[in-house]
Amino acid sequence: MSDYGKAFALMRDAAQGPWQDYTRHAFVEGMKDGSLPRAAFLHYLRQDYVFLIHFSRAWALAVVKSETHAEMLAASRTVNGLISEEMKLHIGICEAEGIPQYQLFATRERAENLAYTRFVLEAGYSGDLLDLLAALAPCVMGYAEIGTRLAADATSDTYRDWITTYASDDYQGACVAVGELLDSALTARVSENFEASPRWNRLCHTFRTATELEVNFWQMGLTP
Amino acid sequence: MSDYGKAFALMRDAAQGPWQDYTRHAFVEGMKDGSLPRAAFLHYLRQDYVFLIHFSRAWALAVVKSETHAEMLAASRTVNGLISEEMKLHIGICEAEGIPQYQLFATRERAENLAYTRFVLEAGYSGDLLDLLAALAPCVMGYAEIGTRLAADATSDTYRDWITTYASDDYQGACVAVGELLDSALTARVSENFEASPRWNRLCHTFRTATELEVNFWQMGLTP
Amino acid sequence: MSDYGKAFALMRDAAQGPWQDYTRHAFVEGMKDGSLPRAAFLHYLRQDYVFLIHFSRAWALAVVKSETHAEMLAASRTVNGLISEEMKLHIGICEAEGIPQYQLFATRERAENLAYTRFVLEAGYSGDLLDLLAALAPCVMGYAEIGTRLAADATSDTYRDWITTYASDDYQGACVAVGELLDSALTARVSENFEASPRWNRLCHTFRTATELEVNFWQMGLTP
Amino acid sequence: MSDYGKAFALMRDAAQGPWQDYTRHAFVEGMKDGSLPRAAFLHYLRQDYVFLIHFSRAWALAVVKSETHAEMLAASRTVNGLISEEMKLHIGICEAEGIPQYQLFATRERAENLAYTRFVLEAGYSGDLLDLLAALAPCVMGYAEIGTRLAADATSDTYRDWITTYASDDYQGACVAVGELLDSALTARVSENFEASPRWNRLCHTFRTATELEVNFWQMGLTP
Repeated sequence: MSDYGKAFALMRDAAQGPWQDYTRHAFVEGMKDGSLPRAAFLHYLRQDYVFLIHFSRAWALAVVKSETHAEMLAASRTVNGLISEEMKLHIGICEAEGIPQYQLFATRERAENLAYTRFVLEAGYSGDLLDLLAALAPCVMGYAEIGTRLAADATSDTYRDWITTYASDDYQGACVAVGELLDSALTARVSENFEASPRWNRLCHTFRTATELEVNFWQMGLTP
Repeated sequence: MSDYGKAFALMRDAAQGPWQDYTRHAFVEGMKDGSLPRAAFLHYLRQDYVFLIHFSRAWALAVVKSETHAEMLAASRTVNGLISEEMKLHIGICEAEGIPQYQLFATRERAENLAYTRFVLEAGYSGDLLDLLAALAPCVMGYAEIGTRLAADATSDTYRDWITTYASDDYQGACVAVGELLDSALTARVSENFEASPRWNRLCHTFRTATELEVNFWQMGLTP
Repeated sequence: MSDYGKAFALMRDAAQGPWQDYTRHAFVEGMKDGSLPRAAFLHYLRQDYVFLIHFSRAWALAVVKSETHAEMLAASRTVNGLISEEMKLHIGICEAEGIPQYQLFATRERAENLAYTRFVLEAGYSGDLLDLLAALAPCVMGYAEIGTRLAADATSDTYRDWITTYASDDYQGACVAVGELLDSALTARVSENFEASPRWNRLCHTFRTATELEVNFWQMGLTP
Repeated sequence: MSDYGKAFALMRDAAQGPWQDYTRHAFVEGMKDGSLPRAAFLHYLRQDYVFLIHFSRAWALAVVKSETHAEMLAASRTVNGLISEEMKLHIGICEAEGIPQYQLFATRERAENLAYTRFVLEAGYSGDLLDLLAALAPCVMGYAEIGTRLAADATSDTYRDWITTYASDDYQGACVAVGELLDSALTARVSENFEASPRWNRLCHTFRTATELEVNFWQMGLTP
């Protein structure tokens, strides 16, 4: 498993139950052994496309909330990666399945989807960069963990494209950069011992809530 | 039925299906005939207390997004009404039921609850006062409609306190004022024929989504 | 001199030069001995009216950025005090001078005025409650210090109404409450020793910049 | 002169006086004939570097405030252009003049600088994409007009690097794209006849204020 930094490791440990529910969800295990119905996958992919639009907006908000040039660069690289790379995966797979792009755009947002992105955006608007990053991290790093594990353990090639995207050096490298951004932003605003600060519990709570919303998102994926 | 203004009436008509599901939900009908289990009501009341904290924050955001002194006054009156009056109802009923205030504060926010308030707050942060008011209106005016109807039709006194609060002249007057704020804000920003503008569909969509999230909130209330 | 809390005292000491320039500005000394030209005072009052509109919006943003019910109450009390009390002083004095309210509304905002309120609002939007309070404090407490000193030392009654407003028990009590809000918000988010945190310098920088913008505001008042 | 779209042309015409003061400012004429003192230029360049940090944040906010994928792409391209291209010009020229990058970073922000960027950011936070774009347009397109005119009329090569940057096809193309974004965002939110809407006056007022803040910025450049 890659190293995504100190803060992420601590936040994940503090949210252990939901983290397991999220990264070992039936939807994930179904991609691993190929048993996930195609209809569920395509339904998930369409919802995830809408998710990525709002998730990209949230990362753009991280640029706005940056206090140094280095923070701005790290956040804007992620915005570009999302808008120009990750969304292409969705468009490509959907087109190959006969779902044209205009249908993707028109996808009706499910409540479990909306709940997650609005929670992240509101955390960012109401708080500072730390509140925002704590809400963004579970999606970014969780997919990296799932991608790495499934690249090693998958017993079917049905969902290989998806797995390869998140296991790729590109995506893993982006996650390492996000982990560094999180650690350095905490050090600059709180202290090297950020886990001893009164803010830490609140940040861990935000991370945990976002993780629970990821569980709901997978669950929604199972019910087209 | 009271008159809450032109825009509200049009938005409600455009969201007719969800509006029925919301204002005639099984939870509401259970308050009307007294069949709603007490445990469900108290569970709802605790979640609604957390809801009101974030809903008050959203109304404070309406003060920030105001462009005239009159808009500021109307929005700040609502903030005060929420913080000093409506929340007292919840604290009072809960205390009478043996739920102390510190337990109310500690209520764990359910996903259906969080989805709604974060949607409203994000609509307000990302848009202007109109986007925010379109997201706030279903809760404000829907409770007024429910209160009025149940005050006339309730066959049980079990939930009379709740019904009386939302049927009261005070609450009804506040809703009329919110309706006027919505109409005048639309006229000032769009035109007298605001329903012909390209923004109108989007505002109606926001209103409809908030209404659907109200349905989910009642549904959550039924499952403590 | 009243006690407006620990954080304010430390921030003021860290901004000593600008703080003197602000609280002992020629405009202030002119109110003390009555030598300030009436035209300058009325010009200032009209600009300050526009200032208070945006300053009230900034305090409403403090309600939005609150994380506890106590924070929400403290901030919303200040919003009301501003909208319903402090703005009345301006309207009253201006009316007595023959400036009707509609002319007050139509005041063209000067750049020195705009610079200050947009700085405060942006600090609040981009940061959390602490960043916002650090930007709000110089105006709130500086006027309290000036009011107290001039109530004791003024050698003229020309500007007695203004002086009495800010020296009053009401205003002083409000400032003590803001000082407590600042201290408790820092303790809750940083630690009891908040002055040792990496955020402290940045917060002091925000406080200092707002103080410098107050100096520019008085200076603008001298040139109708 | 290039065509930067319908809305820009109308807004510029409505702000004719300030627009002349801005695009024909003594600072600009000094770059044209080479009479601008080098110290003033370098002082301006350092302030403009700080300006660009906050201006980039404001463009990132335009991504957040976008409502379509096309709007997101247009805004994020501008963020990248600013962070990766325009800021390089400043770093390059300053380094050639013996001002290392860490000194650039440490530039103390002048009040005229701060006033402008905070005005733009606050317009964006409090309003929607239109309010933000109206505040962003004068800087983007004004520099394009100045660059085009000086490329044709400059009688000195002293400030040729600066002139070439803003007269370049790259920069001009970016401005045409921003003009299209402004027109299409207005059409989508208001109507094809956006200049007849009640919002139009307010948007023109925002554009005019930003233009006036540009004038103050050049003026500040003349007094290191």
